[in-house]
Amino acid sequence: MPLGERGGWERSESRYCGVETDFSDDVPSLLSFHISTGGFDYVLAPLMNPSYRPSLVEGNGLDTQVLPFSGSDLVLAPSQWSSHVVGKISSWIDLDSEDEVLRMDSETTLKQEVAWATHLSLQACLLPTPKGTSCANYARCVNQILQGLTNLQLWLRIPLVKSDGDSMDATSEDLNDSWELWNSFRLLCEHDSKLSVALDVMSTLPSETSLGRWMGESVRAAIISTDSFLTNARGYPCLSKRHQKLLAGFFDHAVQVVVSGKPVHNITKASDSNTDDTQRHPLRSYLDYVAYLFQKMEALPEQERIEVPLMDNLEAQTYETFERDSVKYIQYQRAVAKALVDRVPDEKASELTTVLMVVGAGRGPLVRASLQAAEETDRKLKVYAVEKNPNAVVTLHNLVKLEGWEDIVTIISCDMRFWSAPEKADILVSELLGSFGDNELSPECLDGAQRFLKTDGISIPSSYTSFIQPVTASKLYNDIKAHKDLAHFETAYVVKLHSVAKLAPSQSVFTFTHPNFSTKANNQRYKKLRFNLPSDAGSALVHGFAGYFDSVLYKDVHLGIEPTTATPNMFSWFPIFFPLRKPVEVHPDSPLEVHFWRCCGSSKVWYEWSVSSPTPSPMHNTNGRSYWVGL
Amino acid sequence: MPLGERGGWERSESRYCGVETDFSDDVPSLLSFHISTGGFDYVLAPLMNPSYRPSLVEGNGLDTQVLPFSGSDLVLAPSQWSSHVVGKISSWIDLDSEDEVLRMDSETTLKQEVAWATHLSLQACLLPTPKGTSCANYARCVNQILQGLTNLQLWLRIPLVKSDGDSMDATSEDLNDSWELWNSFRLLCEHDSKLSVALDVMSTLPSETSLGRWMGESVRAAIISTDSFLTNARGYPCLSKRHQKLLAGFFDHAVQVVVSGKPVHNITKASDSNTDDTQRHPLRSYLDYVAYLFQKMEALPEQERIEVPLMDNLEAQTYETFERDSVKYIQYQRAVAKALVDRVPDEKASELTTVLMVVGAGRGPLVRASLQAAEETDRKLKVYAVEKNPNAVVTLHNLVKLEGWEDIVTIISCDMRFWSAPEKADILVSELLGSFGDNELSPECLDGAQRFLKTDGISIPSSYTSFIQPVTASKLYNDIKAHKDLAHFETAYVVKLHSVAKLAPSQSVFTFTHPNFSTKANNQRYKKLRFNLPSDAGSALVHGFAGYFDSVLYKDVHLGIEPTTATPNMFSWFPIFFPLRKPVEVHPDSPLEVHFWRCCGSSKVWYEWSVSSPTPSPMHNTNGRSYWVGL
Repeated sequence: MPLGERGGWERSESRYCGVETDFSDDVPSLLSFHISTGGFDYVLAPLMNPSYRPSLVEGNGLDTQVLPFSGSDLVLAPSQWSSHVVGKISSWIDLDSEDEVLRMDSETTLKQEVAWATHLSLQACLLPTPKGTSCANYARCVNQILQGLTNLQLWLRIPLVKSDGDSMDATSEDLNDSWELWNSFRLLCEHDSKLSVALDVMSTLPSETSLGRWMGESVRAAIISTDSFLTNARGYPCLSKRHQKLLAGFFDHAVQVVVSGKPVHNITKASDSNTDDTQRHPLRSYLDYVAYLFQKMEALPEQERIEVPLMDNLEAQTYETFERDSVKYIQYQRAVAKALVDRVPDEKASELTTVLMVVGAGRGPLVRASLQAAEETDRKLKVYAVEKNPNAVVTLHNLVKLEGWEDIVTIISCDMRFWSAPEKADILVSELLGSFGDNELSPECLDGAQRFLKTDGISIPSSYTSFIQPVTASKLYNDIKAHKDLAHFETAYVVKLHSVAKLAPSQSVFTFTHPNFSTKANNQRYKKLRFNLPSDAGSALVHGFAGYFDSVLYKDVHLGIEPTTATPNMFSWFPIFFPLRKPVEVHPDSPLEVHFWRCCGSSKVWYEWSVSSPTPSPMHNTNGRSYWVGL
Repeated sequence: MPLGERGGWERSESRYCGVETDFSDDVPSLLSFHISTGGFDYVLAPLMNPSYRPSLVEGNGLDTQVLPFSGSDLVLAPSQWSSHVVGKISSWIDLDSEDEVLRMDSETTLKQEVAWATHLSLQACLLPTPKGTSCANYARCVNQILQGLTNLQLWLRIPLVKSDGDSMDATSEDLNDSWELWNSFRLLCEHDSKLSVALDVMSTLPSETSLGRWMGESVRAAIISTDSFLTNARGYPCLSKRHQKLLAGFFDHAVQVVVSGKPVHNITKASDSNTDDTQRHPLRSYLDYVAYLFQKMEALPEQERIEVPLMDNLEAQTYETFERDSVKYIQYQRAVAKALVDRVPDEKASELTTVLMVVGAGRGPLVRASLQAAEETDRKLKVYAVEKNPNAVVTLHNLVKLEGWEDIVTIISCDMRFWSAPEKADILVSELLGSFGDNELSPECLDGAQRFLKTDGISIPSSYTSFIQPVTASKLYNDIKAHKDLAHFETAYVVKLHSVAKLAPSQSVFTFTHPNFSTKANNQRYKKLRFNLPSDAGSALVHGFAGYFDSVLYKDVHLGIEPTTATPNMFSWFPIFFPLRKPVEVHPDSPLEVHFWRCCGSSKVWYEWSVSSPTPSPMHNTNGRSYWVGL
């Protein structure tokens, strides 16, 4: 029974809760107890008798021998196997042991169990945590197996531990940061998308920043031991505030909870001792608590619930979607109002008419915002609405007629680059910004349009700046890698950044200011940036850079999506993502140095980017070979 | 006039000597002076007036302006430009300057000069040394240029410096190890094969091990300043022993010498003052000395002069080539002789007959060696010569008839795996080893053949071990990369390892011992190796691993190609090279950890390999997908 029905794709994945069980050769009873009685959605159960060792099997009787699996495949319907059982690979296996017999037994058993899980059509198997810090042979064997899998997912069990670094704790010496173990394993397996993490959540948790890294990794399950629960006043299990917050993060990142261990809260002694105890599952109160946490999460804000397919071309969406973004046009209206008041003092409001041009008027939202600003400030306005899309111009004409703006608004059906304006403008209003600010040719368009701006005229926006920050983004990286070509790794994507870990605060990249009448001005840019990970974060893998913009519309009126200053409740822009062809591992003590170029050719504009430290990457998108905007 | 005519491909490349000159707008005179009078083969000359700066060009007259190049393309014939001039890009350019005007001027000038060099069909241009330690923008611009080049090579000028590490010298702080600069630059340019190094040789040289790294890099020129020369007793320039050794290394690695600077040895004052000084080029004595060094090099040993195309399938060569390798068969003869004496004491020499089987007899060289051993030790021998190739069997029959061996040698035309031997052998002789020992199924073949060996019988070879060592091998890497597919990066190549820098002593990988009658035996192997670079080496890039074998034929008689113990003057085996998909940078203080697996399936045998430290690589050749030997 799922934990709840709260919305969003991630939460619909995370609403299933499993339970870790011991080996049983009676799987139907196992399911009956844990699922029907216990209320869990699935069991995480060993598939093979834990005492089995291939090397202990007698003689050459292999041909006639039946492997000691948990019953026949026929004891459950295929759909039951698939939806109710996650296979738990024998936890004794150790492929990096010095003992060659154990190593060989481990390899044989692992392959037999995975083959059995595939035969049963299971959705996933849990791989035991690598023993020690070396895992190359384990990874080699899993990597061989991954090549043959189509549907089965493998979850590598990783304890959620990271020492403080300055700790002298002897036990932490051989595993300082379990993320490193995961990172080695998945690099050796070349980021295979069928390999994910199952995190063992302990009673003590590493620092907040260190936990944050996992939100960009492919974590599929969080296994919470009953030992990690506290006891509330009524004797029931509950979790610490930090554990609660972690679980909320997991729920929002499609991570499923699995309850593990023996019951340590003896609730039957409490008030409800009258009920029929034989019917109650010993871990039911833990499940109930997890369900309570799931249900008490705040509803997602509206813009988070919008379903956006990854890597869609958002520019192709209709004007209508964007016109609905009222927050954006309120900011434009505020900016125009301030500019009008600055251009025309109150005492001249009735005599002076301000000439305002909207370049790229679309179906008219900026025209409307400008006219409302004029009304609000009681200024006289003359508007030229320049639009090159003839279809939008039709709507614009109807709008002007409907609203009775014929005396104020002149519609120019023309490409702004080729228009000869009859007079010069006081204010030039445009909405040409992309997710990365200058990525949709706003600089080039406004350079062209400022021909018909007075030398003391105002451009709205008056400036804009792009920002980037390094992120862990396993899922995005794998989506890009699936294309198996260079071009997709050298393309920037406008995406909703779920399952992303932001590794350092964003920094500004390129700034453009308008108008710019300098003859030496050009729109090429180069910026070198240096990011430092927080010292308690541990190492992390950078899959690329999340990009944003912030724009000064006019004076103190801004508009943007840079996370720390983002305009609230605006949904016109998603972030942009610049991938790296090969992810770069960074440490808090070795800064990440990254270079971004905005390059301009005779017929196109493009970005190039590269990392020079800690290890140089190749240059991305040389000469705009993979990704560009045509002039 | 080339330095000399000594053999080998590398030396035929390195016999040309250039001279670095100042800018001149009279190129014909420049050539006449340096080439006709001076005796140099080419000039390294600036193409553009060094006072030119694009930003200083007045007004908008660009359309009519002629760039201040060194004369018209018509002043020389195209073949003269191409063979006598290497273009020297303006040394003032600084693409990573904080000064944006200088940066823009630099980019414009670099692109103009390279375009001009391309127009002139020059073979190469020298790029000035990056200023400071940052070079990302320079690399971005060069990388853009490289995409458009077809024939022109770019040589990046790099000073040959590396501090000791513990030096407190202030001047060495900003450039501790110039290899790092080169490494960053070429990684940013993604190992483009048209980008090479021109090393500036100084009067002081870094350590031997640090110099060794460069022999695996793509070094095309060594620019030696006249300041670096010492003065001999007669007042003539000469070089220190260490410089001489370095130059000899360069000559053997296809590196051309360029003499640079003003003459600092005033030879005209010396004895030959009577000659016509106006005819003598001021740098002629430096050239003469370089030519002297070139000519005094020892002739290459015969096996070094064999021309082997890279990545050829050596197995396809004829039996004849290998039969000529007399050193190899002398070792076999010695081993058989020792085995015969051990099997049969002197007093029984006339009564006991030793049964010897040659498995894979080919055209008979091991049969001959065995018979010679019997003759030498005065032992009685009965030989079975098993060979599956029916064509070789024809030759074998003729050999036996010709030599009159009919009573001693029985020819078995059969695959050794399917032969039913009429009796068991005392000695089993085979030559199934590959460059990596077990890479041509010797273990599997001998496992099959030992069926007809007596339980106390002897296998020759009795054991063999493979070895690897990490190498820098830019040229091999680029040859592999040129195929643009994964399979070539997951294949091992039998190659002549020229232009390779060996970064650490080799270590043993897999050992096989024969006979091996244990029932638990199998031919799968796993080895983890850890290599440490010498502490004074500096960082280096590992492109892959050179592989070798050593074999114990019998007791103290061995045969092998592992460099420190290699059998002299044997040419049957070249090393094997295991590439890495992405080269790994290693430092003396972070060991390189590498894993090799020998995997056996039902129909094939293959290797997998990976690096786990300092940064994990993906697994190579998973499931033998790219490279295997069929059973």
